[in-house]
Amino acid sequence: MRTVFWEDNQVKMIDQRILPGRFEVCSYTSHKAVAQAITDMVVRGAPAIGATAAFGMALAAFESKATAPMDLRADLQMAATTLKNARPTAVNLAWAVDRLKLVAEKSMGSVNDLRAELLAEAQKLADEDVTINKRMAEHGAALIENRDCIIHHCNTGALAAVDWGTALGVIRTAHEQGKDIHVLVDETRPRLQGARLTAWELDQYGISYEIITDNMAGFFLKAGTANKVFFGADRVAANGDVANKIGTYMLSLAAHDNGVPAYAVVPTPTVDLSLAHGDLIPIEERTEAEVLGIQFQGEAIAPKNARARNPAFDVTPNRLLAGIVTENGVAFPPFEESLRQMVK
Amino acid sequence: MRTVFWEDNQVKMIDQRILPGRFEVCSYTSHKAVAQAITDMVVRGAPAIGATAAFGMALAAFESKATAPMDLRADLQMAATTLKNARPTAVNLAWAVDRLKLVAEKSMGSVNDLRAELLAEAQKLADEDVTINKRMAEHGAALIENRDCIIHHCNTGALAAVDWGTALGVIRTAHEQGKDIHVLVDETRPRLQGARLTAWELDQYGISYEIITDNMAGFFLKAGTANKVFFGADRVAANGDVANKIGTYMLSLAAHDNGVPAYAVVPTPTVDLSLAHGDLIPIEERTEAEVLGIQFQGEAIAPKNARARNPAFDVTPNRLLAGIVTENGVAFPPFEESLRQMVK
Repeated sequence: MRTVFWEDNQVKMIDQRILPGRFEVCSYTSHKAVAQAITDMVVRGAPAIGATAAFGMALAAFESKATAPMDLRADLQMAATTLKNARPTAVNLAWAVDRLKLVAEKSMGSVNDLRAELLAEAQKLADEDVTINKRMAEHGAALIENRDCIIHHCNTGALAAVDWGTALGVIRTAHEQGKDIHVLVDETRPRLQGARLTAWELDQYGISYEIITDNMAGFFLKAGTANKVFFGADRVAANGDVANKIGTYMLSLAAHDNGVPAYAVVPTPTVDLSLAHGDLIPIEERTEAEVLGIQFQGEAIAPKNARARNPAFDVTPNRLLAGIVTENGVAFPPFEESLRQMVK
Repeated sequence: MRTVFWEDNQVKMIDQRILPGRFEVCSYTSHKAVAQAITDMVVRGAPAIGATAAFGMALAAFESKATAPMDLRADLQMAATTLKNARPTAVNLAWAVDRLKLVAEKSMGSVNDLRAELLAEAQKLADEDVTINKRMAEHGAALIENRDCIIHHCNTGALAAVDWGTALGVIRTAHEQGKDIHVLVDETRPRLQGARLTAWELDQYGISYEIITDNMAGFFLKAGTANKVFFGADRVAANGDVANKIGTYMLSLAAHDNGVPAYAVVPTPTVDLSLAHGDLIPIEERTEAEVLGIQFQGEAIAPKNARARNPAFDVTPNRLLAGIVTENGVAFPPFEESLRQMVK
């Protein structure tokens, strides 16, 4: 089953908030509800968000009561704004919405033609995501050797994409090539996508793993236990600076300090050549409830009235990365040049 | 109230496993139970563990059925081994036990004299801990300026010592000097001593704070939000390498990468001049239940049968530290020389 898909004129997605305890599929009949689902992280992961937004645009076309193409385009324009505002950091969201908008703008057909064309484009974008991930996984798997111990941050597997995944897709392909791999899974506070989602996926793929808290990565890198680091990205600037799930910067620093290569695995729709460097990438700050809301021995983890901060992403400077894996090959430093070649 | 104290021939301590939800004092009538309480982290923090072990030795003397001093010394020798084995990393534990053993060895008195002398020594050690912390806090507070934003790791406050605390004692003294300070509190996975204990203490002292997950420290250091980092230590090697709560190494790396000074606040009983460098410090690995046992939205954070790793400490290389605050002043790099002068 795909992470997000179209069925019975509805957008359906696996509810990633409640895994691994429960497996449920949510159905959406309005683009506003789809945007809210992205905000609430029913679906997350840059490629998955992109595909979801594309289906959201198709849904907006079916929702619209417009009878003239011009009116439908106006409705789609509003839907595009709603969907783009759902989350700010992953560039895939805006990229997917713009791609659907372009189809609407270029179409010469009727309102019904337009609806069909938008749905076909969303479906194509989702299918391409799977193809891209598989190609990326082949390039990335070449970097993995037998008996590697890999630290992985957040979730970048099938759940973070339409299917297969980015960094975890690389690990999965290396495993299927018969390489003996062990993964140290960063739990990835505050939402624990590593412990909840990545561990759940690795379990299903039969890949050996152990969960660690994020702050333990340095210990295992220094001890020589882990010899490679892989993660995804939500947006990559033209110079190779990588915005990814909070904690990626500290993980990359620890890898770099110990001479361990850190790789970002990134489909080209995640690369934003319009931004010269990573400090220009907008970073989402989410509700403090995500930090304070876990329970320790059945009790609250903080005093009543405690406040918290919750930046959802950070930027890893390009100097800390050994390579950026794309579907067109692996970009190596200096990234200004190599990354541009990958995007083509 | 002190974190650990002697009352009615019992060792009593605040149960730090259940704060901030509940405040309870546990009472112990045997040194074996005291050792178990140290292992189970009813009490934690290097100075507090030291004082607890000292009281544990006194308790062993009262428990003993020996009628001759020689037999009591033999019982104390066994108790010393039990207490020292409770936890391996904090050197204060062995230091305190050895100090009590020395009293027993040097005493010329009867069994009852010996009991009284051991209790007096434990009481003296506990009192000294408070005095030392207050002196350390004065030296450290001089490093803090008005409007500083400080990242603090784990708990190093009154709860981590007999009273007042080490790094948090420094912050508290600076606050009482009228300096306007804000603290970003690392939650400190897996046992959340930051969110649970440090936030609780800061609340009581009226010091402004916000909780962050450990992996967010790099974000706030890079953004220029935080301009100082303070933490304690469980053992410091002769060259200034610091073993402290897991995550300290990655935090120090992030501070160093952004030119932000990181200070360890360390009473001299925590300095182990017998170890040339930090890689010689034994690192405790604790049960995986501590990592896997929190709840996210009322559910388990990992698949059933998931495994985890749980090193409780890591070693921060001296090159990442701006200074080591002791009760005799602040040691600055190179630490080989300056630290030896502080220990005297």
